Amino acid sequence: MPKGFKANALACGIKKSGKLDLALFYSSIAAKASCKFTSNKIQAAPIQVNRFHLRDNNTFRAVIVNSGNANCFCGRQGLKDAREVAGSLARSLGIRKKEVLMASTGIIGRRLPVKKIQQALPKLIGGLSLQGVDKAKRAILTTDTFFKTLTAQVSIGGRKVTICGMTKGAGMIAPDMATMLTFLFTDAHILNGALNRALEICVEQTFNCITVDGCMSTNDSIVMLANGSAGNALIEAGENFNLFVRSLEVVCLELAKMIVKDAEGASKFIQIKVDQARNFQEAKKLALAIANSSLFKTAVFGQNPNFGRIVAALGSCSVELKEEDLKVKVSPLQKKEIFVRVSVNRGRSSAVVYTSDLTPEYIRINAAYN
Amino acid sequence: MPKGFKANALACGIKKSGKLDLALFYSSIAAKASCKFTSNKIQAAPIQVNRFHLRDNNTFRAVIVNSGNANCFCGRQGLKDAREVAGSLARSLGIRKKEVLMASTGIIGRRLPVKKIQQALPKLIGGLSLQGVDKAKRAILTTDTFFKTLTAQVSIGGRKVTICGMTKGAGMIAPDMATMLTFLFTDAHILNGALNRALEICVEQTFNCITVDGCMSTNDSIVMLANGSAGNALIEAGENFNLFVRSLEVVCLELAKMIVKDAEGASKFIQIKVDQARNFQEAKKLALAIANSSLFKTAVFGQNPNFGRIVAALGSCSVELKEEDLKVKVSPLQKKEIFVRVSVNRGRSSAVVYTSDLTPEYIRINAAYN
Repeated sequence: MPKGFKANALACGIKKSGKLDLALFYSSIAAKASCKFTSNKIQAAPIQVNRFHLRDNNTFRAVIVNSGNANCFCGRQGLKDAREVAGSLARSLGIRKKEVLMASTGIIGRRLPVKKIQQALPKLIGGLSLQGVDKAKRAILTTDTFFKTLTAQVSIGGRKVTICGMTKGAGMIAPDMATMLTFLFTDAHILNGALNRALEICVEQTFNCITVDGCMSTNDSIVMLANGSAGNALIEAGENFNLFVRSLEVVCLELAKMIVKDAEGASKFIQIKVDQARNFQEAKKLALAIANSSLFKTAVFGQNPNFGRIVAALGSCSVELKEEDLKVKVSPLQKKEIFVRVSVNRGRSSAVVYTSDLTPEYIRINAAYN
Repeated sequence: MPKGFKANALACGIKKSGKLDLALFYSSIAAKASCKFTSNKIQAAPIQVNRFHLRDNNTFRAVIVNSGNANCFCGRQGLKDAREVAGSLARSLGIRKKEVLMASTGIIGRRLPVKKIQQALPKLIGGLSLQGVDKAKRAILTTDTFFKTLTAQVSIGGRKVTICGMTKGAGMIAPDMATMLTFLFTDAHILNGALNRALEICVEQTFNCITVDGCMSTNDSIVMLANGSAGNALIEAGENFNLFVRSLEVVCLELAKMIVKDAEGASKFIQIKVDQARNFQEAKKLALAIANSSLFKTAVFGQNPNFGRIVAALGSCSVELKEEDLKVKVSPLQKKEIFVRVSVNRGRSSAVVYTSDLTPEYIRINAAYN
């Protein structure tokens, strides 16, 4: 963890399996925050609480996360429950309620067991430590089969700045955003606007370029805290900003790829590059059309080089492609990592999108989930 | 078959299995035609030929269909091959080349075996008969497990008018249009404009309201011929037009449902109704979001009433839904036919969409196809 951050996690009883299900991240000094939430019209209660806390407040101290329950589509009660958790945590930590951010992931439509969380708070807070992040990175998981963390360090004006990221997600992954929770912590001293801009730039080409099943979640959140403990000169723009963005991008891209590598039931990791497009958005749209095609994904699973399915997917977008302009290359399907490259002869922009194959195991996992 | 139509089919060797793969439909008198083709930007060669034939020509006599090869993404050679088939058929039948319509379905990107088709033409034409439709309805199939035909009769001005439809399709089924070939034959005497309008009305609420896997084909075609042999007073508008549309709609809806019932690997038939929407398009968009959600489809396969996935799918559309306005009902998942009903409290329009569940068998079929 970067300077000034601690974490802890425990099993409070939300998951019947007895696995870790409640995590707390804490900054001992006031941190700036930048967040991204799902664009789904149905948004989970913790996201609604976060939006309210972010509205007229600039400092944050804690992020509380539970897995096993999404606290979504629970009506006013869900919102009340989320607020109660935030309030109890703030009182216990001696901070303002608005300094709390939160996230939930798990089953939709079941009431959050607030009492269980409240009863666990003293132990959760008492155990906050640098090492606690090892438990926290596990407590945020649901169907994930491995934890996903990455730390980058960059020297900015002679000071070492650390960016630590962790994420969860394996299914219900679609861009804008992928179904996932991501937490990013940095000790960088950075202007609020620069922090937002940095996150915006990085997310667009990383978490917004992955898809597992094209399904958009109600709980997606990226929460980033920057507490300034690194003591670097304030990052605003220019070279220092670029250095910070490059490090953050590495963290985000690797975390995003880890989600795809852990995709539910997947046997392949697929990288799709579309180039010669008019602009990035067009390239991304075409790449995603392939990435979200069930027929393409099953062909990869079957190691069956059925390039007609790639062409059919490309043509289903509203992009005016010409058959004679298309070039499609697919690497050998026997390998674990597959590369698809499509050139469309329309311009100079490109995009890379990451996805997985579609397997009987994906269906088994999701048929039984709940 | 309606009056004046004949059909035949045989195995010309396109399918290695030796199954029927070449069908011919023939009208002994000149027929009017109305067609719908895929909106995919990559369109198979036979569709390009049809568009050309439909441009400045009003009478049609024959429809030739092959299965096992899509004749798509084969460049100029594909177009040349399709034209050659149309030309040979026209010569053999003694009709103009432009009076031929055609359709192909099967693997994309392989050259059509024109010679095999040409060699089969004499036998194909020689065997044209009323009973030939029994072979033809089989020859248009690919992964279908049963043939799909329906005939309706309606009395118009005291004359019996027959509408006979047949269709194929089981995978790569998405709306606008579903991946399928549909052939509709009627002996109705009907104005060209009325025929087009009737087909337009019927397709929008039937073939454009089904989805299996959200994948759009390059070969979708609906070809309808009306040869006027019923001897009814010309159908233009008013009550006779409405009678004709109602019959055609029954045929189209039942054929569309048959496609979904034969969906690759499916174990359930799912009907999704969204009501209280602002308009039909909005209702359809919401219903399709559910129908195309892999997570919803696997939940139905698993008989796992995970209504959160319905809510997440609804929210992923760009429709301004409010959580408190949503009502979601799902019939018991143990049954073979599932009914989903969603009310959104925004208006008075509704739409019904038909789909199937997503199963390990779908993946096995499509992983091995080719």
